[in-house]
Amino acid sequence: MPRAHNFNAGPAAMPVSALELARDELLDFEGTGMSILEHSHRGKDFDRVHQEALGLIRELAGVPDDYDVLLLQGGGSQQFAMVPMNLLPAGKSADYVITGGWSEKAFEEAKTVGQARIAATTAIDGAEPGSKIYRRIPKQKELTLDPEAAYVHLTSNNTLYGTQWASFPSREVISRPLVADMSSDFLSKPIDVARFALIYAGAQKNIGPSGIVVVIARKDVVAGGRTDIPRIFRYSTAAKDNSLYNTPPTFSIYLIRNVLRWVKANGGAAGMASRNEKKGAILYQALDARADFYRCPVERESRSLMNVVWNLPTKELEAKFVAEAQKSGMVGLKGHRITGGIRASLYNAVSEESVRALVDFMDDFARRA
Amino acid sequence: MPRAHNFNAGPAAMPVSALELARDELLDFEGTGMSILEHSHRGKDFDRVHQEALGLIRELAGVPDDYDVLLLQGGGSQQFAMVPMNLLPAGKSADYVITGGWSEKAFEEAKTVGQARIAATTAIDGAEPGSKIYRRIPKQKELTLDPEAAYVHLTSNNTLYGTQWASFPSREVISRPLVADMSSDFLSKPIDVARFALIYAGAQKNIGPSGIVVVIARKDVVAGGRTDIPRIFRYSTAAKDNSLYNTPPTFSIYLIRNVLRWVKANGGAAGMASRNEKKGAILYQALDARADFYRCPVERESRSLMNVVWNLPTKELEAKFVAEAQKSGMVGLKGHRITGGIRASLYNAVSEESVRALVDFMDDFARRA
Repeated sequence: MPRAHNFNAGPAAMPVSALELARDELLDFEGTGMSILEHSHRGKDFDRVHQEALGLIRELAGVPDDYDVLLLQGGGSQQFAMVPMNLLPAGKSADYVITGGWSEKAFEEAKTVGQARIAATTAIDGAEPGSKIYRRIPKQKELTLDPEAAYVHLTSNNTLYGTQWASFPSREVISRPLVADMSSDFLSKPIDVARFALIYAGAQKNIGPSGIVVVIARKDVVAGGRTDIPRIFRYSTAAKDNSLYNTPPTFSIYLIRNVLRWVKANGGAAGMASRNEKKGAILYQALDARADFYRCPVERESRSLMNVVWNLPTKELEAKFVAEAQKSGMVGLKGHRITGGIRASLYNAVSEESVRALVDFMDDFARRA
Repeated sequence: MPRAHNFNAGPAAMPVSALELARDELLDFEGTGMSILEHSHRGKDFDRVHQEALGLIRELAGVPDDYDVLLLQGGGSQQFAMVPMNLLPAGKSADYVITGGWSEKAFEEAKTVGQARIAATTAIDGAEPGSKIYRRIPKQKELTLDPEAAYVHLTSNNTLYGTQWASFPSREVISRPLVADMSSDFLSKPIDVARFALIYAGAQKNIGPSGIVVVIARKDVVAGGRTDIPRIFRYSTAAKDNSLYNTPPTFSIYLIRNVLRWVKANGGAAGMASRNEKKGAILYQALDARADFYRCPVERESRSLMNVVWNLPTKELEAKFVAEAQKSGMVGLKGHRITGGIRASLYNAVSEESVRALVDFMDDFARRA
């Protein structure tokens, strides 16, 4: 079977080299007579893998020395709770910038922990009565900030609505500690980690499998976190034991290592950025060239390079598009169940060849429609 | 490289057939042109895997219809917090039976959430000043129970100290809802699920990789859980969405499925019990035959079939034992850093052949010593 053109929104395409290495040594990791799955998380063989994975994150994301890099479980959704549990003390409030379904969820979860307010939202009414949709990232002047906020939370890329922050508000605009959910664009381009108090990212888009989340947090933020919460949910617990307080998801860490070796071999974060810019340009160009047929609802300066969304003139044509694309070996193009339409996710491991195949199919489909 | 004799305490040995299947289809899952790692957790291909895994747990553990089976992240350690968060309301107290390091941790974590008390402990003074050690499971008459307790928590098998509950207290003895951490002996033998309000088990001992935990809970217990906690930590959230509220660790679920196919093909829970009883008998017999040299500190009726611990006359001999065993292809025999000594974990996937190899080595070592 040839490799599918995989446009899944996550779990998503992974580099072939990362999978091949996993396959080749699945029953015998480096001559130990055991799978890496069977190694102790406290043994020296796994320790090398773990250190390499942490080191690659630090190197490729440019993490300063005064930041901790943690590998935790529970994905971004658990971080929606852990961020306020650690960083939102009683009597304080946190600011949330709402740009899509995931920031809505982060905000709702924060309210189960403490006080949270909306610093900005770009929600507009959707077609369904009572529904909300999003088409853009807010302008800086739209932010109404609490000068005493415990932190300000934003979602760097919105997988459902295909929007992405092109740049982040400066310290002059947001002076309070900035927390970002980067689940869907972490390591897809260089970022200035020092701008953030805390970054979290589920691995299953750009850097690995589902079931593991990277947290990068300034050491003083980790150390100053609340201690009146269960130990397992304190960032300080994971930081103290180098993410080995409890048994980590060892195979997921191994796979992250494999994927990050590929990222490094392909130019690191800068290499991913040029790769992703090129893929995005090809697809958005194809959409713009037939803007009457392929309708991208996203404001131009908010367009995401990770998730490209568009509509066809009718729901029937959209269903036909997805079905025919599937027959041509392209999977994952159906939009999210909340938004409908078409979505192509172009994470790091999606090849330019896959995007070109999609664009060729789109041309052909439009001509025939 | 021949397969190592793997006595790791977890992550631990896995069935070769489960690993071989994972290897063979790692780049192409059932002709889809994609790894199962790259499939969407909401697609029909992964859904079949997920349903099969849940169905196998239900079938092999004999889970009654009025119980939910959940697959969550964060391992047993996260359950230490989630159990009281869900089941311990303000104004109530929970009873903990302390039989080792893991029940200590569960108890300490419960106290960060609410009120908890010790219903029994078998701790005795250890050799180090201030240290506590455990040699046995308490007798029923030693339990001093709070008749109003929100629940009673116990640890079915103690990996550090090599003790295991041979049978569980009846409803006449413990009338309050019974919660059990079965991380280290789940599906190693038949259990009466109906005796418990809630069972949890990290997968990395008997049924899969690290990074995933099985929770089996009576539906009324799930539905009656506290709602003043973050959504992600409510059992009801996972139950409502069939463990797909957030992106699950898809590959870990796939591996559980593979392992449970092997459990089913080898006689299910009853088949595992006879396999484990046989392995345990071989090793304990070898210890008892040279009781002057290999000293098992565990009270006979509390002996674990999962983790067998013993000491040699000196620490030097213990270190020599571990090193020489390693050279003979036997790994994971060093006791836990807290307890020292020797420990052999004999989980489901450890073969009788491995235990015989260990016993032969022990005979030889003792003769030479």
